[in-house]
Amino acid sequence: MGGVVTGDGAAEVRAMAPLDRATNTDLSFLAKARYAPMYERTRASVVLIAPEFAELSTTAAARIVVDRPHDAMLAVLPRLYRSPAREPGVHATARLGRGVTLGNDVTIGPYAVIADGAAIGDRSWIEAHVSVGAGVVVGTDSRVFPSATLYSGTTLGNRVLVHAGVRLGSDGFGYVFRNAAHEKIPHVGRCIIEDDVEIGANTTIDRGSVDDTVIGAGTKIDNLVQIAHNVRIGRLCLILAQVGIAGSARVEDGAVIAGQAGLGGHITIGARAQIAGQAGVFGDVPPGETWSGYPARPHRQSLRASAAVLRLADIIKKLERLVERE
Amino acid sequence: MGGVVTGDGAAEVRAMAPLDRATNTDLSFLAKARYAPMYERTRASVVLIAPEFAELSTTAAARIVVDRPHDAMLAVLPRLYRSPAREPGVHATARLGRGVTLGNDVTIGPYAVIADGAAIGDRSWIEAHVSVGAGVVVGTDSRVFPSATLYSGTTLGNRVLVHAGVRLGSDGFGYVFRNAAHEKIPHVGRCIIEDDVEIGANTTIDRGSVDDTVIGAGTKIDNLVQIAHNVRIGRLCLILAQVGIAGSARVEDGAVIAGQAGLGGHITIGARAQIAGQAGVFGDVPPGETWSGYPARPHRQSLRASAAVLRLADIIKKLERLVERE
Amino acid sequence: MGGVVTGDGAAEVRAMAPLDRATNTDLSFLAKARYAPMYERTRASVVLIAPEFAELSTTAAARIVVDRPHDAMLAVLPRLYRSPAREPGVHATARLGRGVTLGNDVTIGPYAVIADGAAIGDRSWIEAHVSVGAGVVVGTDSRVFPSATLYSGTTLGNRVLVHAGVRLGSDGFGYVFRNAAHEKIPHVGRCIIEDDVEIGANTTIDRGSVDDTVIGAGTKIDNLVQIAHNVRIGRLCLILAQVGIAGSARVEDGAVIAGQAGLGGHITIGARAQIAGQAGVFGDVPPGETWSGYPARPHRQSLRASAAVLRLADIIKKLERLVERE
Repeated sequence: MGGVVTGDGAAEVRAMAPLDRATNTDLSFLAKARYAPMYERTRASVVLIAPEFAELSTTAAARIVVDRPHDAMLAVLPRLYRSPAREPGVHATARLGRGVTLGNDVTIGPYAVIADGAAIGDRSWIEAHVSVGAGVVVGTDSRVFPSATLYSGTTLGNRVLVHAGVRLGSDGFGYVFRNAAHEKIPHVGRCIIEDDVEIGANTTIDRGSVDDTVIGAGTKIDNLVQIAHNVRIGRLCLILAQVGIAGSARVEDGAVIAGQAGLGGHITIGARAQIAGQAGVFGDVPPGETWSGYPARPHRQSLRASAAVLRLADIIKKLERLVERE
Repeated sequence: MGGVVTGDGAAEVRAMAPLDRATNTDLSFLAKARYAPMYERTRASVVLIAPEFAELSTTAAARIVVDRPHDAMLAVLPRLYRSPAREPGVHATARLGRGVTLGNDVTIGPYAVIADGAAIGDRSWIEAHVSVGAGVVVGTDSRVFPSATLYSGTTLGNRVLVHAGVRLGSDGFGYVFRNAAHEKIPHVGRCIIEDDVEIGANTTIDRGSVDDTVIGAGTKIDNLVQIAHNVRIGRLCLILAQVGIAGSARVEDGAVIAGQAGLGGHITIGARAQIAGQAGVFGDVPPGETWSGYPARPHRQSLRASAAVLRLADIIKKLERLVERE
Repeated sequence: MGGVVTGDGAAEVRAMAPLDRATNTDLSFLAKARYAPMYERTRASVVLIAPEFAELSTTAAARIVVDRPHDAMLAVLPRLYRSPAREPGVHATARLGRGVTLGNDVTIGPYAVIADGAAIGDRSWIEAHVSVGAGVVVGTDSRVFPSATLYSGTTLGNRVLVHAGVRLGSDGFGYVFRNAAHEKIPHVGRCIIEDDVEIGANTTIDRGSVDDTVIGAGTKIDNLVQIAHNVRIGRLCLILAQVGIAGSARVEDGAVIAGQAGLGGHITIGARAQIAGQAGVFGDVPPGETWSGYPARPHRQSLRASAAVLRLADIIKKLERLVERE
């Protein structure tokens, strides 16, 4: 970051807080003029500030002038932040089925229910009210937040974060219409979550029908996302809130799907492609391209179409008269 | 309401029910002709009826002729309705951490888990299977329905209703791409829910990154809504089902966001503005305006554009010929 | 299916698996050339294969040549699949209120909470961490997956499947603005789920305000769907993921609502109508028709409008010049 330090160079920093809530072990930052009054009387230990505020006085023990305090703060945060305290052990109220395997230093929270034959890896943490289905495998250093459900057929890799209320491995939406009824197709595929995946609160990911549903390593999924049976998501993708991905779609490595977008079944989103918010995608998207709109098209084309429609509204009457005269 | 009563003026009313399910302590109403046969043989104690049905006979003990029976019913309901029975006390199976503070007449349901240092205010009700994180503060007269999760960093005001499966204070979706991976930005801001807020089932509201996420007093939020980190919602807003609000957006007092609409990050929706269902909003909306469509524009402009497009479809071929001839 | 069997006609089949995971009691299938190498060395007992692969050798005990192996597999699956083992009985940690009625061979899972006066029918299964409200009725042979919530006022028929995290019978979103506040309208209607309905994970269905919310027999609902108060869904409908249905809407028998579509309040979707993904429907849709787009129109009309807009973008400048010259 290359910032210039003024004040107590040995000032202690243990955590991060906004200027008005910071205490004498907190790092804070000043990026906008309207927060300057808070800066002048903050109890923060150290403050990252933009060059334009360098002349202001402060009650902080030290300050560091950097070009972009917010970026600097984000860069520092992961080093500063310590994971919440976790006490290894199985809570007295947790219920473990027959043949459950627990790794070293595992934490199983109150009222967690772990069914027969499940395996929880070293240092993983299953929180309160979680249900782990029969035979589920959880890798090492993973954390499942309260009230999540891992249906039978689910596998988590290492360092996976599953937030509260997530449902993994639920039956996909598949029926055959027979004898005047929608007859359920049993789902026997798996739901595989690879290493370093994070899954946001209340997201649902169905298991495969016969094949598997797979979320690739390092992919991050936001809240309230729906991923249907047999979908394959590649590595390092970002899937934002309320996205819906229909059955058997593929999303290749590094793609970004913005909020509330919907992907049709059996299509492929190419590597590093970007899909705009609320887009409705019904066909393949080539690698690296940005698509938007409904039905989704290359973003430039969507913008041109939107602009043309706005201009059309002003001239449609005259156009109709022109056409009538022909 | 000024209705005219006929029949037993002392007829007892304890609850509200449709004509076909009403019993002799129920109030009911008749607003549409097709329910007239039910009216004639209802067991209801009292029926609110529209003037056009005044001549019909009924088995009800009394009837009240009012101009708009449905509105009258809505007006009466809140007075008629009694909150469900709540027995103060901590259920034997609830688990309370170290230093948990409970107010007077609190109810803690079966299998609720309340972590270290949390505080629950007078007459508040934490239902079955709820997880309350370390240090969470719940005000007075609030109710948290089953299986909700309050992450550490969450604060509820007074008279707040949090429905089943709600997740408050989960980590926001924030990463920096570094060393060929999406590195998680720790979230240390708070999730603040002010007084008189109601939050619908399975809705998710993330905590702030460093700053806070705040839901203003008297705002009502429907089911399956997503509210991202650092969002600020004002007072008395209505946020309908499946709305998504991206990071750091602001919604000012009294705004109404209709179902499935999406708000982009860092934008401001002005006071009392109305956003139509499914709208995709990518820029600021001035106070008091109604916007719709994708990308969202003032509603009048969206309507004109939609109408122009419909008319365009009928003349596009001729327009292309006209242009070619030039 | 009329397939031709080669190999051990008595080969045993107990389950279904992809070629690479199949063991000697599994049925598998080969439909695409790229899986042929797996076919040649599979441990599957029996493989369904398309005619074009009939010449390939395999390690499977038997193979059956059929025209469409995938369809054949789907047809066989329901017969092959055995429901997961269920042990009747009430878990020692389940909490039953006063006057709860249990049918024969019921299963109540660990930490389930069943409130006063609820009734669970024969052979029904309430899984871990489920909350069943006071007076709720569950029919026979139904299954409620972990962490679901049935609010008071909910009724389930027979053979109903309620997936993890579903919320049934929560209060609808109804307020009257009075005394400078959104005053809550109490909800006293019911949430009625008829026979053979399946409801996907984390879906929410509100109870009626005074009237009821009803899901008709044989209807299937996907994950993360929102159904508001007083909605009536007919029989044998399919409601796909993330659909939102506003208050008092009606969906008649056999209609199909595709993913992320939104239905406005008080409208009627006719019998067997089909609504496309992401459509925004604000008016009635006649029986049997297919509608799409925003605002939704008959699908043909939406397609024509989309195509016209794309072509417009190429000629809008020339059109504006034409109009200016007039």
